[in-house]
Amino acid sequence: MTFPPNGPTVPSAAPAADTIVAKHKDKLESALAAIAGRGYWSAYPESPSPRVYGEGKAEAGRAAYEAHLGKPFELGQPGADGWVGGEISPYGPELGVTYEHLSADAALSAAATAMAGWRAAGPETRAALCVEMIDRINERSFEMASAVMHTTGQAFVMAFQAGGPHAQDRALEAVAYAYAEQTRHAASAVWEKPQGKRPPLRMEKTFTPVPRGIALVVGCNTFPTWNSYPGLFASLVTGNAVIVKPHPRAVLPLAITVSIAREVLAGNGFDPDVVLLAPEAPGEGLAAVLAVRPEVKIIDFTGSTAFGNWLEDHARQARVYTEKSGVNVVLIESTGDYAGMLANLAFSLILYSGQMCTTPQDLVVPTAGIGTDQGHKSVDEFAADLGSAIDRTLGPDAQAVELLGAIVNDAVLERLDSAAGQAGGRAAVASRVIAHPAFPGARVRTPLVVRAGAGDSLIESECFGPVTYLVSAPDAAGVLDVFRRVVGTRGALTAGVYSTDASFVEAARGAALEVGVALSENLTSGVYVNQSAAFSDFHATGANPAATASYTDGEFVAGRFRVIQSRRHLS
Amino acid sequence: MTFPPNGPTVPSAAPAADTIVAKHKDKLESALAAIAGRGYWSAYPESPSPRVYGEGKAEAGRAAYEAHLGKPFELGQPGADGWVGGEISPYGPELGVTYEHLSADAALSAAATAMAGWRAAGPETRAALCVEMIDRINERSFEMASAVMHTTGQAFVMAFQAGGPHAQDRALEAVAYAYAEQTRHAASAVWEKPQGKRPPLRMEKTFTPVPRGIALVVGCNTFPTWNSYPGLFASLVTGNAVIVKPHPRAVLPLAITVSIAREVLAGNGFDPDVVLLAPEAPGEGLAAVLAVRPEVKIIDFTGSTAFGNWLEDHARQARVYTEKSGVNVVLIESTGDYAGMLANLAFSLILYSGQMCTTPQDLVVPTAGIGTDQGHKSVDEFAADLGSAIDRTLGPDAQAVELLGAIVNDAVLERLDSAAGQAGGRAAVASRVIAHPAFPGARVRTPLVVRAGAGDSLIESECFGPVTYLVSAPDAAGVLDVFRRVVGTRGALTAGVYSTDASFVEAARGAALEVGVALSENLTSGVYVNQSAAFSDFHATGANPAATASYTDGEFVAGRFRVIQSRRHLS
Repeated sequence: MTFPPNGPTVPSAAPAADTIVAKHKDKLESALAAIAGRGYWSAYPESPSPRVYGEGKAEAGRAAYEAHLGKPFELGQPGADGWVGGEISPYGPELGVTYEHLSADAALSAAATAMAGWRAAGPETRAALCVEMIDRINERSFEMASAVMHTTGQAFVMAFQAGGPHAQDRALEAVAYAYAEQTRHAASAVWEKPQGKRPPLRMEKTFTPVPRGIALVVGCNTFPTWNSYPGLFASLVTGNAVIVKPHPRAVLPLAITVSIAREVLAGNGFDPDVVLLAPEAPGEGLAAVLAVRPEVKIIDFTGSTAFGNWLEDHARQARVYTEKSGVNVVLIESTGDYAGMLANLAFSLILYSGQMCTTPQDLVVPTAGIGTDQGHKSVDEFAADLGSAIDRTLGPDAQAVELLGAIVNDAVLERLDSAAGQAGGRAAVASRVIAHPAFPGARVRTPLVVRAGAGDSLIESECFGPVTYLVSAPDAAGVLDVFRRVVGTRGALTAGVYSTDASFVEAARGAALEVGVALSENLTSGVYVNQSAAFSDFHATGANPAATASYTDGEFVAGRFRVIQSRRHLS
Repeated sequence: MTFPPNGPTVPSAAPAADTIVAKHKDKLESALAAIAGRGYWSAYPESPSPRVYGEGKAEAGRAAYEAHLGKPFELGQPGADGWVGGEISPYGPELGVTYEHLSADAALSAAATAMAGWRAAGPETRAALCVEMIDRINERSFEMASAVMHTTGQAFVMAFQAGGPHAQDRALEAVAYAYAEQTRHAASAVWEKPQGKRPPLRMEKTFTPVPRGIALVVGCNTFPTWNSYPGLFASLVTGNAVIVKPHPRAVLPLAITVSIAREVLAGNGFDPDVVLLAPEAPGEGLAAVLAVRPEVKIIDFTGSTAFGNWLEDHARQARVYTEKSGVNVVLIESTGDYAGMLANLAFSLILYSGQMCTTPQDLVVPTAGIGTDQGHKSVDEFAADLGSAIDRTLGPDAQAVELLGAIVNDAVLERLDSAAGQAGGRAAVASRVIAHPAFPGARVRTPLVVRAGAGDSLIESECFGPVTYLVSAPDAAGVLDVFRRVVGTRGALTAGVYSTDASFVEAARGAALEVGVALSENLTSGVYVNQSAAFSDFHATGANPAATASYTDGEFVAGRFRVIQSRRHLS
């Protein structure tokens, strides 16, 4: 298989391109309509039911996952210089999977070679092939669910949904934006300028989207697919080659992803090295090495504020899209549905043990308490009722683990223990240990809620994991002050407000516009502040310190390519 | 006049908004169609003929210009602490206009106060008011032409066109992109998610574009309006307040612009301080002071590579869009219209004395010469013929000055003299002094063409002004090598190719995609490599070191605002 070294020549696989474009035309058009309308739409069903995905699929997926364990995961990448691995499930077992290790030079060299043919394929073919990849990822959602579960600690259903269909929808959303952005201009135009009585000037112009270069996607531990797919697919559709550097504790979900992408590429006549997996050896710090290489022009990162800021400061040759940590705030002024509010908040704190970047960190209430449909509630009463709601939502331990999942790693566990130790008498809701009925090695804990004052410095930083602060502010205006101060200085991925007072809600909306965070108002039923639906909700805003980008808007895709024009006279 | 301190309240002037939106609806829709189709379209006629702009308009515009001279230009900006000025026409006369000086604190404070009401106006109203501003700028095109002529040295007709209608078209183009980007999503949506047999989950969602903050536009000496309008209007339409820091030698065109913008704002119930002029005192370096202030979130700059790079390195809190210098290259391999090519190249070198950022710097030919419809031409013959073509195009001195204009400032003159002195026997076409018949003080010089080798380091840097290198490369492949090397390392705003060999043109196209520069092919009639037409040609690419942005594409506008959503249950 050879490729043109440069130039806009159509690859030899072109005849296949028409077929694949036609195959995925309807889905792409539906996605394009969805990103404009932003109502509800989903391409990939979230229910793991056999009625949706077929009988036997769950069992086959589990078997496929188990077939990976204890073996090398072969991708056939060029220049591999060894094998790395070492994932341990938060539920206990060692995965024992090893992956091809590539040096930075080997990865960059393979990506650079592969990119020319991919660039020449054009936006339509690239978008269609990316939809093909996502469809095939969807077919393996049960295998992926186990891989996500045993690298992140998510419970199975959440791992299926967030790691599977929800991530796939986010991928398709990115494909739609990137396709739309490249095709919003005509690919060619005739420019005919009147010249009074003389014949018009006539030019033919060609507009070619060209990729920025090699893209680096740095995955995270907790959402290896959901947080990596937008950048991965946005960069791919815009013609870049992509090197995926997974989190060392969550390699398998991205290895499966990369293997599918490579299979689709090779099967359609493209160099599979357009997508590469670059797992790191212990202590190697490969992301930092790759990030500052001149060949790397795009970086997508989800993870710590410290490394996100480092990337922004040091990877000056690249476009850097980061999602870092923030301090998510819920303002609780009053409610017309106290039971609904408590149940909704309890679920938000419980889900995946508070290990979502969107989980509330600070619940802010006026010191005098809140008005509710069940009468006035003091802060003490609210704290007690929240504790009861958490217990009710958790239910029996065997059921609770299906919401809590497991603590993703020891650092989170240590942070929780430390917070519990420091809380002392300020613990409004205590965290307790739960024994997982199926996985004795799993670290399972219930949420800790700690009382704090509006001036306490601890409410201004994220305590990642099942730790929430119940913050007393002087009054309703003070609740808004905490919101503006904390989110304005530390950033946030989400914010919520509960109030029956229209003017307070309006003030919260105004403050949310000021500090640049999405606001959920009076959530009391089956939508939670930590949920963000593809095609409708923008995830992160890029308008506060928690992130420089948003899933997904025009800004997320427009800088991943440039338009190069040529023009010539027409006679 | 008071404004809501924050929040998405509609300003009290709202009733007027509907009228202005309706007034400009057709023009905005035409512009939106034009940016998608990218054929020929113009909203503002480029001909200064009285048949187009009306009898007496030219005289009235000149009188309006002269009425500014020797007087303070009053804008009524708050906190002004003195007057600055000192513009001297490249044609000789001192302008004697003085402008209100604002400290960085005064400018930023006024802009911050003004922004809230502007944000609340929403994209439709902001776009309509910006079109109103541009229409009123268009009405004053003759006044602007004199202001541009006597600050830049452009000849009158060019100052009229490039400083007037062409700049206005670029402004409208930016308005269209910024409007399209903010309205590509629904402003609100109902999200209704099926829940099997249970009732669907229903949410109402609101999506509000919010500005990034205060924008700074740093103007340049040679194209104060054309290069400032895209950033100015893109930032305005997206809700930002804009501080315009003009080049100290080219203040008047932007003072007129700002005065019109402020008049439209105030006349429609908005705080005029949404647009401020911040001219600097000698040696103040106000742009660098403003650029690193935390309130400044967007910077548009046109000018030197040194300051552009400084901004990119230091203004880390802001989105920085720069157009710096590059080395524009024309590849000359062969031609089927030797006379047409010579006339076209000659015009490109002469126009505004080579002081366009798009003027060719390097003409690269094979050492063995070129094939033409008039037989083979050696490099010596080509050099001589180019000199003759330049003389023919210049014509008599009285006519020549209408193409050459005047040298913009002494630094350019010194650079020309230095290049001429160093060239010695390598001068292929000598520069000569021309006496301007109307302005004895004007610095007018014809182009200098200097022979150089493909390996000479001087061909790898811009010599801004009427200096061009005629570069001999070993052969056709060597011509391409020079192109790739020079543009790849130094960047370029434009590139051209002449060849009758389709494979050479194809190779040049491939190289242009690789190094990321727009390519003009075989220009032999009334379109020139240094011309870039709004709504059709992308000016700069952001894909090579000469610029980080392009006029205009989605990327130029998408980062100037963010979308903030709120959501709530619907029963």
